[in-house]
Amino acid sequence: MDLKNTRINYNKSEINFDDIYDNPIDFFLKWLDEAFENNCLEPNSFVLSTVENKTPSSRVVLLKNVDKDGFIFYTNYDSNKSRHILSNNNVALNFFWPQLEKQVRIIGFASKISASVSDDYFSSRPRESQFGAVLSEQSKKIEYNYDFNSKLSVIKKEYENKEITRPKNWGGFKVVPNKIEFWQGRPSRLHDRLLYELKKSGWQKSRLSP
Amino acid sequence: MDLKNTRINYNKSEINFDDIYDNPIDFFLKWLDEAFENNCLEPNSFVLSTVENKTPSSRVVLLKNVDKDGFIFYTNYDSNKSRHILSNNNVALNFFWPQLEKQVRIIGFASKISASVSDDYFSSRPRESQFGAVLSEQSKKIEYNYDFNSKLSVIKKEYENKEITRPKNWGGFKVVPNKIEFWQGRPSRLHDRLLYELKKSGWQKSRLSP
Repeated sequence: MDLKNTRINYNKSEINFDDIYDNPIDFFLKWLDEAFENNCLEPNSFVLSTVENKTPSSRVVLLKNVDKDGFIFYTNYDSNKSRHILSNNNVALNFFWPQLEKQVRIIGFASKISASVSDDYFSSRPRESQFGAVLSEQSKKIEYNYDFNSKLSVIKKEYENKEITRPKNWGGFKVVPNKIEFWQGRPSRLHDRLLYELKKSGWQKSRLSP
Repeated sequence: MDLKNTRINYNKSEINFDDIYDNPIDFFLKWLDEAFENNCLEPNSFVLSTVENKTPSSRVVLLKNVDKDGFIFYTNYDSNKSRHILSNNNVALNFFWPQLEKQVRIIGFASKISASVSDDYFSSRPRESQFGAVLSEQSKKIEYNYDFNSKLSVIKKEYENKEITRPKNWGGFKVVPNKIEFWQGRPSRLHDRLLYELKKSGWQKSRLSP
Protein backbone atom coordinates (compact mmCIF):
# COMPACT_ATOMS: atom_id res chain seq x y z
CA MET A 1 0.00 0.00 0.00
CA ASP A 2 1.14 3.52 -0.76
CA LEU A 3 -0.21 5.77 2.00
CA LYS A 4 1.52 8.93 0.77
CA ASN A 5 -0.18 8.79 -2.61
CA THR A 6 -3.57 7.50 -1.54
CA ARG A 7 -6.03 10.34 -1.94
CA ILE A 8 -9.08 11.07 -4.08
CA ASN A 9 -9.43 14.28 -6.04
CA TYR A 10 -13.05 14.81 -4.94
CA ASN A 11 -15.38 16.00 -7.67
CA LYS A 12 -18.76 14.31 -7.24
CA SER A 13 -20.81 17.21 -5.98
CA GLU A 14 -20.76 20.67 -4.47
CA ILE A 15 -22.72 22.77 -1.98
CA ASN A 16 -24.85 25.38 -3.70
CA PHE A 17 -24.41 28.32 -1.34
CA ASP A 18 -27.16 30.24 -3.15
CA ASP A 19 -29.76 27.73 -2.04
CA ILE A 20 -29.20 26.39 1.46
CA TYR A 21 -31.55 25.11 4.13
CA ASP A 22 -32.33 27.35 7.10
CA ASN A 23 -32.46 24.33 9.38
CA PRO A 24 -29.45 21.99 9.48
CA ILE A 25 -31.56 18.97 10.50
CA ASP A 26 -33.44 19.25 7.19
CA PHE A 27 -30.13 19.46 5.35
CA PHE A 28 -28.83 16.46 7.32
CA LEU A 29 -31.90 14.39 6.43
CA LYS A 30 -31.38 15.20 2.76
CA TRP A 31 -27.80 13.92 2.86
CA LEU A 32 -28.70 10.88 4.98
CA ASP A 33 -31.41 10.03 2.49
CA GLU A 34 -28.90 10.31 -0.32
CA ALA A 35 -26.58 7.92 1.55
CA PHE A 36 -29.43 5.38 1.75
CA GLU A 37 -30.48 5.90 -1.88
CA ASN A 38 -26.92 5.34 -3.05
CA ASN A 39 -26.51 2.18 -0.99
CA CYS A 40 -23.62 3.52 1.03
CA LEU A 41 -22.35 0.85 3.41
CA GLU A 42 -23.74 1.38 6.93
CA PRO A 43 -25.31 4.71 5.94
CA ASN A 44 -26.52 5.38 9.49
CA SER A 45 -23.18 4.72 11.18
CA PHE A 46 -21.26 7.56 12.78
CA VAL A 47 -18.26 8.04 15.02
CA LEU A 48 -19.30 9.19 18.49
CA SER A 49 -16.63 11.04 20.47
CA THR A 50 -16.82 11.54 24.20
CA VAL A 51 -14.37 13.07 26.68
CA GLU A 52 -13.06 11.62 29.94
CA ASN A 53 -10.98 14.16 31.84
CA LYS A 54 -9.12 15.81 28.97
CA THR A 55 -8.92 12.73 26.76
CA PRO A 56 -11.23 12.00 23.83
CA SER A 57 -12.37 8.55 22.86
CA SER A 58 -14.39 7.52 19.86
CA ARG A 59 -16.28 4.55 18.49
CA VAL A 60 -18.77 3.71 15.74
CA VAL A 61 -22.45 3.83 16.70
CA LEU A 62 -25.65 3.48 14.67
CA LEU A 63 -28.13 6.34 14.39
CA LYS A 64 -31.60 5.06 15.27
CA ASN A 65 -33.74 8.18 15.03
CA VAL A 66 -33.57 11.86 14.11
CA ASP A 67 -36.19 14.43 14.88
CA LYS A 68 -36.24 18.22 14.94
CA ASP A 69 -34.48 18.21 18.34
CA GLY A 70 -31.68 15.79 17.75
CA PHE A 71 -30.06 12.45 17.09
CA ILE A 72 -30.81 9.22 18.96
CA PHE A 73 -28.61 6.16 19.50
CA TYR A 74 -28.78 3.23 21.92
CA THR A 75 -26.13 1.63 24.08
CA ASN A 76 -25.36 -0.06 27.37
CA TYR A 77 -25.67 2.56 30.12
CA ASP A 78 -22.73 0.94 31.98
CA SER A 79 -20.43 1.21 28.94
CA ASN A 80 -17.45 3.58 28.90
CA LYS A 81 -19.19 5.93 26.48
CA SER A 82 -22.21 6.19 28.81
CA ARG A 83 -19.95 6.72 31.81
CA HIS A 84 -18.18 9.52 29.94
CA ILE A 85 -21.46 11.15 28.90
CA LEU A 86 -22.93 10.96 32.40
CA SER A 87 -19.98 12.94 33.76
CA ASN A 88 -19.51 15.26 30.74
CA ASN A 89 -22.30 15.38 28.21
CA ASN A 90 -20.39 17.23 25.47
CA VAL A 91 -20.17 14.90 22.49
CA ALA A 92 -19.21 15.01 18.82
CA LEU A 93 -20.75 12.97 15.99
CA ASN A 94 -19.05 12.42 12.66
CA PHE A 95 -20.92 10.99 9.67
CA PHE A 96 -18.71 10.19 6.67
CA TRP A 97 -20.02 8.81 3.39
CA PRO A 98 -16.88 8.38 1.26
CA GLN A 99 -18.92 7.20 -1.71
CA LEU A 100 -20.62 10.62 -1.79
CA GLU A 101 -17.49 12.53 -0.68
CA LYS A 102 -19.64 14.01 2.08
CA GLN A 103 -19.12 14.48 5.81
CA VAL A 104 -21.32 15.93 8.55
CA ARG A 105 -19.74 17.06 11.82
CA ILE A 106 -22.01 17.62 14.81
CA ILE A 107 -21.30 18.95 18.31
CA GLY A 108 -23.94 18.86 21.03
CA PHE A 109 -25.13 17.67 24.40
CA ALA A 110 -26.23 14.09 25.05
CA SER A 111 -28.80 13.02 27.59
CA LYS A 112 -30.76 9.87 28.39
CA ILE A 113 -34.11 9.47 26.68
CA SER A 114 -37.21 8.22 28.49
CA ALA A 115 -37.46 4.57 29.52
CA SER A 116 -40.62 4.12 27.45
CA VAL A 117 -38.94 5.24 24.21
CA SER A 118 -36.04 2.88 24.94
CA ASP A 119 -38.54 0.07 25.67
CA ASP A 120 -40.23 0.62 22.32
CA TYR A 121 -36.99 0.49 20.40
CA PHE A 122 -35.67 -2.51 22.35
CA SER A 123 -38.78 -4.50 21.60
CA SER A 124 -38.35 -3.76 17.87
CA ARG A 125 -34.82 -5.25 17.78
CA PRO A 126 -34.15 -8.74 16.40
CA ARG A 127 -34.31 -11.35 19.15
CA GLU A 128 -30.62 -12.18 18.62
CA SER A 129 -29.61 -8.56 19.27
CA GLN A 130 -31.80 -8.53 22.38
CA PHE A 131 -29.93 -11.56 23.69
CA GLY A 132 -26.66 -9.74 22.95
CA ALA A 133 -27.78 -6.82 25.11
CA VAL A 134 -28.81 -9.12 27.94
CA LEU A 135 -25.53 -11.08 27.79
CA SER A 136 -22.79 -8.53 27.46
CA GLU A 137 -21.26 -6.53 30.28
CA GLN A 138 -19.95 -4.01 27.80
CA SER A 139 -16.21 -3.24 27.81
CA LYS A 140 -15.50 -5.45 30.84
CA LYS A 141 -12.30 -7.46 30.51
CA ILE A 142 -13.06 -11.13 29.84
CA GLU A 143 -11.11 -14.34 29.27
CA TYR A 144 -9.75 -14.93 25.76
CA ASN A 145 -11.70 -18.17 25.59
CA TYR A 146 -14.92 -16.74 27.03
CA ASP A 147 -17.69 -18.77 25.47
CA PHE A 148 -20.63 -16.59 24.48
CA ASN A 149 -22.29 -19.43 22.64
CA SER A 150 -22.76 -21.59 25.70
CA LYS A 151 -24.04 -18.57 27.69
CA LEU A 152 -26.32 -17.80 24.76
CA SER A 153 -27.82 -21.30 24.79
CA VAL A 154 -28.53 -21.07 28.52
CA ILE A 155 -30.24 -17.71 28.14
CA LYS A 156 -32.16 -18.84 25.06
CA LYS A 157 -33.55 -21.75 27.05
CA GLU A 158 -34.42 -19.45 29.96
CA TYR A 159 -36.34 -17.11 27.66
CA GLU A 160 -38.00 -19.80 25.52
CA ASN A 161 -41.44 -18.55 24.45
CA LYS A 162 -40.92 -15.48 26.62
CA GLU A 163 -40.59 -11.88 25.60
CA ILE A 164 -37.18 -10.37 26.40
CA THR A 165 -37.65 -7.12 28.29
CA ARG A 166 -35.14 -4.30 28.05
CA PRO A 167 -32.33 -4.61 30.60
CA LYS A 168 -32.45 -1.55 32.87
CA ASN A 169 -28.85 -0.72 31.95
CA TRP A 170 -29.56 -0.51 28.22
CA GLY A 171 -31.20 2.45 26.51
CA GLY A 172 -31.00 5.55 24.38
CA PHE A 173 -29.28 8.91 24.37
CA LYS A 174 -30.40 11.93 22.41
CA VAL A 175 -27.82 14.42 21.17
CA VAL A 176 -29.15 17.98 20.91
CA PRO A 177 -26.82 19.77 18.49
CA ASN A 178 -25.40 23.29 18.79
CA LYS A 179 -23.00 23.12 15.82
CA ILE A 180 -23.41 21.21 12.57
CA GLU A 181 -20.97 21.40 9.70
CA PHE A 182 -21.57 20.04 6.20
CA TRP A 183 -18.46 19.15 4.21
CA GLN A 184 -18.42 18.28 0.54
CA GLY A 185 -15.07 17.20 -0.93
CA ARG A 186 -13.95 19.33 -3.90
CA PRO A 187 -11.05 19.24 -6.37
CA SER A 188 -7.58 20.39 -5.24
CA ARG A 189 -8.65 20.03 -1.58
CA LEU A 190 -10.72 23.24 -1.97
CA HIS A 191 -13.68 21.62 -0.22
CA ASP A 192 -17.08 23.24 0.35
CA ARG A 193 -17.89 23.72 4.04
CA LEU A 194 -21.07 25.13 5.56
CA LEU A 195 -21.33 25.67 9.32
CA TYR A 196 -24.56 26.10 11.32
CA GLU A 197 -24.19 27.48 14.86
CA LEU A 198 -27.09 27.71 17.27
CA LYS A 199 -27.51 31.27 18.62
CA LYS A 200 -30.28 32.82 20.70
CA SER A 201 -31.85 34.00 17.45
CA GLY A 202 -31.72 30.54 15.92
CA TRP A 203 -29.35 28.79 13.51
CA GLN A 204 -26.66 31.06 12.08
CA LYS A 205 -24.95 29.94 8.87
CA SER A 206 -21.41 30.61 7.61
CA ARG A 207 -19.23 29.28 4.86
CA LEU A 208 -15.79 28.10 6.02
CA SER A 209 -12.50 28.12 4.18
CA PRO A 210 -11.48 24.58 3.18
CA MET B 1 -35.13 5.12 4.94
CA ASP B 2 -35.77 2.95 7.95
CA LEU B 3 -33.21 3.88 10.59
CA LYS B 4 -34.60 1.60 13.28
CA ASN B 5 -34.15 -1.51 11.16
CA THR B 6 -30.90 -0.61 9.43
CA ARG B 7 -28.21 -2.83 10.86
CA ILE B 8 -25.96 -5.59 9.56
CA ASN B 9 -25.64 -8.93 11.31
CA TYR B 10 -21.84 -8.95 11.06
CA ASN B 11 -20.33 -12.29 10.13
CA LYS B 12 -17.37 -11.73 7.81
CA SER B 13 -14.52 -12.51 10.13
CA GLU B 14 -13.41 -12.97 13.71
CA ILE B 15 -10.39 -12.30 15.92
CA ASN B 16 -8.48 -15.46 16.68
CA PHE B 17 -7.55 -14.87 20.33
CA ASP B 18 -5.23 -17.88 20.28
CA ASP B 19 -2.93 -16.18 17.81
CA ILE B 20 -2.58 -12.46 18.36
CA TYR B 21 0.22 -10.00 17.65
CA ASP B 22 2.33 -8.80 20.58
CA ASN B 23 2.61 -5.38 18.97
CA PRO B 24 -0.59 -3.53 18.01
CA ILE B 25 1.12 -1.56 15.23
CA ASP B 26 1.84 -4.85 13.45
CA PHE B 27 -1.79 -5.87 13.89
CA PHE B 28 -2.94 -2.46 12.62
CA LEU B 29 -0.76 -2.75 9.52
CA LYS B 30 -2.27 -6.16 8.78
CA TRP B 31 -5.80 -4.75 8.89
CA LEU B 32 -4.88 -1.60 6.96
CA ASP B 33 -3.31 -3.79 4.30
CA GLU B 34 -6.50 -5.83 4.14
CA ALA B 35 -8.51 -2.61 3.65
CA PHE B 36 -6.28 -1.70 0.70
CA GLU B 37 -6.39 -5.22 -0.76
CA ASN B 38 -10.18 -5.25 -0.59
CA ASN B 39 -10.49 -1.84 -2.25
CA CYS B 40 -12.25 -0.26 0.70
CA LEU B 41 -13.16 3.34 -0.12
CA GLU B 42 -10.63 5.77 1.37
CA PRO B 43 -8.88 2.95 3.24
CA ASN B 44 -6.48 5.37 4.95
CA SER B 45 -9.14 7.78 6.21
CA PHE B 46 -9.87 8.05 9.90
CA VAL B 47 -11.84 10.27 12.25
CA LEU B 48 -9.53 12.42 14.38
CA SER B 49 -11.02 13.66 17.65
CA THR B 50 -9.54 16.53 19.62
CA VAL B 51 -10.73 18.32 22.77
CA GLU B 52 -11.17 22.04 23.36
CA ASN B 53 -11.97 22.76 26.99
CA LYS B 54 -14.33 19.87 27.76
CA THR B 55 -15.82 19.58 24.27
CA PRO B 56 -14.75 17.04 21.66
CA SER B 57 -14.67 17.74 17.97
CA SER B 58 -13.97 15.35 15.14
CA ARG B 59 -13.21 15.34 11.43
CA VAL B 60 -11.96 12.94 8.75
CA VAL B 61 -8.21 13.02 8.08
CA LEU B 62 -5.96 10.87 5.87
CA LEU B 63 -3.22 8.71 7.36
CA LYS B 64 0.05 9.44 5.54
CA ASN B 65 2.53 7.27 7.37
CA VAL B 66 2.78 4.67 10.12
CA ASP B 67 5.95 3.52 11.78
CA LYS B 68 6.75 1.67 14.99
CA ASP B 69 6.21 4.88 17.01
CA GLY B 70 2.95 6.11 15.62
CA PHE B 71 0.60 7.54 13.04
CA ILE B 72 1.29 10.62 10.88
CA PHE B 73 -1.16 13.02 9.25
CA TYR B 74 -0.78 16.51 7.75
CA THR B 75 -2.84 19.65 8.18
CA ASN B 76 -2.82 23.42 8.42
CA TYR B 77 -1.13 24.36 11.71
CA ASP B 78 -3.57 27.29 12.10
CA SER B 79 -6.64 25.03 11.78
CA ASN B 80 -8.96 24.39 14.71
CA LYS B 81 -7.68 20.82 15.09
CA SER B 82 -4.09 22.08 15.34
CA ARG B 83 -5.09 24.77 17.80
CA HIS B 84 -6.81 22.12 19.93
CA ILE B 85 -3.79 19.81 19.80
CA LEU B 86 -1.34 22.56 20.67
CA SER B 87 -3.27 23.29 23.88
CA ASN B 88 -4.23 19.65 24.68
CA ASN B 89 -2.43 16.93 22.79
CA ASN B 90 -4.73 14.06 23.80
CA VAL B 91 -6.34 12.74 20.63
CA ALA B 92 -8.40 9.78 19.45
CA LEU B 93 -8.26 8.12 16.03
CA ASN B 94 -11.04 5.94 14.67
CA PHE B 95 -10.54 3.77 11.58
CA PHE B 96 -13.70 2.07 10.33
CA TRP B 97 -13.83 -0.24 7.34
CA PRO B 98 -17.51 -1.23 7.08
CA GLN B 99 -16.80 -3.53 4.14
CA LEU B 100 -14.60 -5.63 6.44
CA GLU B 101 -16.77 -5.05 9.54
CA LYS B 102 -13.60 -3.88 11.29
CA GLN B 103 -12.80 -0.89 13.45
CA VAL B 104 -9.59 0.28 15.13
CA ARG B 105 -9.77 2.78 18.00
CA ILE B 106 -6.59 4.56 19.03
CA ILE B 107 -5.88 6.98 21.88
CA GLY B 108 -2.58 8.81 22.12
CA PHE B 109 -0.59 12.03 22.18
CA ALA B 110 -0.07 14.16 19.09
CA SER B 111 2.94 16.36 18.45
CA LYS B 112 4.42 18.23 15.49
CA ILE B 113 6.90 16.35 13.33
CA SER B 114 10.12 17.92 12.06
CA ALA B 115 9.98 20.57 9.34
CA SER B 116 12.14 18.46 7.06
CA VAL B 117 9.76 15.48 7.15
CA SER B 118 6.85 17.83 6.41
CA ASP B 119 8.87 19.39 3.55
CA ASP B 120 9.47 15.97 2.03
CA TYR B 121 5.82 15.02 2.12
CA PHE B 122 4.65 18.43 0.87
CA SER B 123 6.93 18.21 -2.14
CA SER B 124 5.45 14.78 -2.98
CA ARG B 125 1.87 16.11 -3.13
CA PRO B 126 0.15 16.84 -6.46
CA ARG B 127 0.71 20.46 -7.53
CA GLU B 128 -3.05 21.14 -7.29
CA SER B 129 -3.10 20.05 -3.62
CA GLN B 130 -0.05 22.24 -2.96
CA PHE B 131 -1.94 25.23 -4.35
CA GLY B 132 -4.86 24.32 -2.09
CA ALA B 133 -2.59 24.45 0.96
CA VAL B 134 -1.14 27.81 -0.10
CA LEU B 135 -4.59 29.30 -0.76
CA SER B 136 -6.78 28.24 2.13
CA GLU B 137 -6.91 29.91 5.53
CA GLN B 138 -8.44 26.81 7.02
CA SER B 139 -11.76 27.16 8.89
CA LYS B 140 -11.85 30.95 8.55
CA LYS B 141 -15.33 32.28 7.75
CA ILE B 142 -15.53 33.42 4.12
CA GLU B 143 -18.14 34.91 1.80
CA TYR B 144 -20.63 32.50 0.22
CA ASN B 145 -19.49 33.62 -3.22
CA TYR B 146 -15.76 33.49 -2.42
CA ASP B 147 -14.09 32.68 -5.71
CA PHE B 148 -11.27 30.20 -5.23
CA ASN B 149 -10.86 29.77 -8.96
CA SER B 150 -9.82 33.33 -9.63
CA LYS B 151 -7.43 33.25 -6.63
CA LEU B 152 -6.12 29.96 -7.98
CA SER B 153 -5.38 31.46 -11.41
CA VAL B 154 -3.47 34.35 -9.82
CA ILE B 155 -1.38 32.00 -7.72
CA LYS B 156 -0.80 29.62 -10.62
CA LYS B 157 0.59 32.50 -12.67
CA GLU B 158 2.76 33.62 -9.76
CA TYR B 159 4.24 30.13 -9.40
CA GLU B 160 4.58 29.38 -13.11
CA ASN B 161 7.68 27.20 -13.62
CA LYS B 162 8.48 27.56 -9.92
CA GLU B 163 8.51 24.96 -7.22
CA ILE B 164 5.90 25.52 -4.50
CA THR B 165 7.55 25.38 -1.10
CA ARG B 166 5.67 24.25 1.99
CA PRO B 167 3.82 27.09 3.74
CA LYS B 168 5.25 27.46 7.25
CA ASN B 169 1.76 26.93 8.70
CA TRP B 170 1.28 23.55 7.05
CA GLY B 171 2.80 20.30 8.28
CA GLY B 172 2.51 16.99 10.05
CA PHE B 173 1.57 15.62 13.44
CA LYS B 174 2.55 12.24 14.78
CA VAL B 175 0.22 10.43 17.18
CA VAL B 176 2.05 8.16 19.64
CA PRO B 177 -0.55 5.66 20.86
CA ASN B 178 -1.09 4.43 24.41
CA LYS B 179 -4.30 2.47 23.77
CA ILE B 180 -5.34 0.60 20.65
CA GLU B 181 -8.50 -1.46 20.36
CA PHE B 182 -9.34 -3.83 17.54
CA TRP B 183 -13.03 -4.45 16.91
CA GLN B 184 -14.43 -7.12 14.62
CA GLY B 185 -18.20 -7.17 14.12
CA ARG B 186 -19.79 -10.52 15.03
CA PRO B 187 -23.29 -12.02 14.82
CA SER B 188 -25.94 -10.96 17.40
CA ARG B 189 -23.82 -7.91 18.32
CA LEU B 190 -21.42 -10.24 20.19
CA HIS B 191 -18.41 -8.51 18.63
CA ASP B 192 -14.77 -9.49 19.14
CA ARG B 193 -12.74 -6.80 20.87
CA LEU B 194 -9.02 -6.83 21.69
CA LEU B 195 -7.47 -3.98 23.67
CA TYR B 196 -3.75 -3.12 23.85
CA GLU B 197 -2.68 -0.76 26.65
CA LEU B 198 0.83 0.61 26.95
CA LYS B 199 2.32 -0.11 30.38
CA LYS B 200 5.87 0.31 31.70
CA SER B 201 6.50 -3.31 30.80
CA GLY B 202 5.22 -2.85 27.24
CA TRP B 203 1.90 -3.54 25.51
CA GLN B 204 -0.62 -5.38 27.67
CA LYS B 205 -3.45 -7.20 25.91
CA SER B 206 -7.00 -7.92 27.08
CA ARG B 207 -10.17 -9.16 25.49
CA LEU B 208 -13.20 -6.93 26.11
CA SER B 209 -16.84 -7.85 26.40
CA PRO B 210 -18.77 -6.71 23.29
